[in-house]
Amino acid sequence: MSRWQPDARPRLETAALELFAEQGFAATTVPQIAARAGLTTRTFFRHFADKREVIFAGDEYPEFAARLIAEAPLSLDPMTLVVEGLRSVADTFEERRERIRGLRRIIRSDEGLRERELRKRAALCEAIRDGFIDRGVAPSLAALVAETGVSLLHVSIETWLEEDDGRTLYAVVLDTLGSLRTVLAPTNGGKCDPGSAGG
Amino acid sequence: MSRWQPDARPRLETAALELFAEQGFAATTVPQIAARAGLTTRTFFRHFADKREVIFAGDEYPEFAARLIAEAPLSLDPMTLVVEGLRSVADTFEERRERIRGLRRIIRSDEGLRERELRKRAALCEAIRDGFIDRGVAPSLAALVAETGVSLLHVSIETWLEEDDGRTLYAVVLDTLGSLRTVLAPTNGGKCDPGSAGG
Repeated sequence: MSRWQPDARPRLETAALELFAEQGFAATTVPQIAARAGLTTRTFFRHFADKREVIFAGDEYPEFAARLIAEAPLSLDPMTLVVEGLRSVADTFEERRERIRGLRRIIRSDEGLRERELRKRAALCEAIRDGFIDRGVAPSLAALVAETGVSLLHVSIETWLEEDDGRTLYAVVLDTLGSLRTVLAPTNGGKCDPGSAGG
Repeated sequence: MSRWQPDARPRLETAALELFAEQGFAATTVPQIAARAGLTTRTFFRHFADKREVIFAGDEYPEFAARLIAEAPLSLDPMTLVVEGLRSVADTFEERRERIRGLRRIIRSDEGLRERELRKRAALCEAIRDGFIDRGVAPSLAALVAETGVSLLHVSIETWLEEDDGRTLYAVVLDTLGSLRTVLAPTNGGKCDPGSAGG
């Protein structure tokens, strides 16, 4: 009865994002999305649990981060590993700039979607932290590295979308990391002296 | 009819936190809280909009941060200002360690409270970012400083509660800042060279 539609998923995604942009996320229904895509609601539910899933599906970053950290050589220091992970993630963003820009606009327009994004971000942070704790990193350092990595990613995505100056997302990540080092340098001459942070 | 109860608010807080700890946040009702405090529900609602407010009331950090940033001398660099703000906040935490520990336990036990905490954290981040943008800091740098400040605060609170080794929260903040500098130092010999972050 329902023959296999190999392109159903991207068609549903395109239809959903168009409708969210045109009439808002809250006002858009699954039957409308399916109709716009020329498919049935049943096909929709074969691909997505609900309309929110169209926005968030595929973002398996916590699992990705956990695997990357678990499989990395123990000799790698945490921050090198985080930057390596950011590079892998950034590469997958490169082809999808316009789509990601559209998604962000939709997410910002809806309080429920914004909450879901914050929860996702917290889940990624916890996955990274737990991954480092499993490698023997002290919990407070593991949390710090996780927070820093997730902050770098988010600020970099924002900059990459806003400034749109030809840099790849990974180049923006590296520049942002450079800015973070600069801004954190103790003001007494800009030396990088970790010992200066004592009581 | 209802005479003024000068200690009503702390009594309601104590009663609420006891009940949340004993029987869970979701199972606790406002009438129960009022009864435990020996007050009426009407008195409760004179102090708090709902039971969640008992947990989150008084945390006016976004307003505090916005004011601090707006009033600071323009000569202060962003990170110095953030650390200054963290010191002010940390000082207010010092006397309340056990209460904050109890609150965190309750917040973690309830998905809705965790979401509210994430939203509060995002609001603080935005207030700091916007404050720096108003001072002429580039948006991407403002966002980075805001994220870093909020991360430092959260990781430090966590460490301060977990390790409980006699350090003040502000001492933990400074130690965490030192750790962040160390972990971010480029691995090629530990030099602090912002230029090393190019594409």
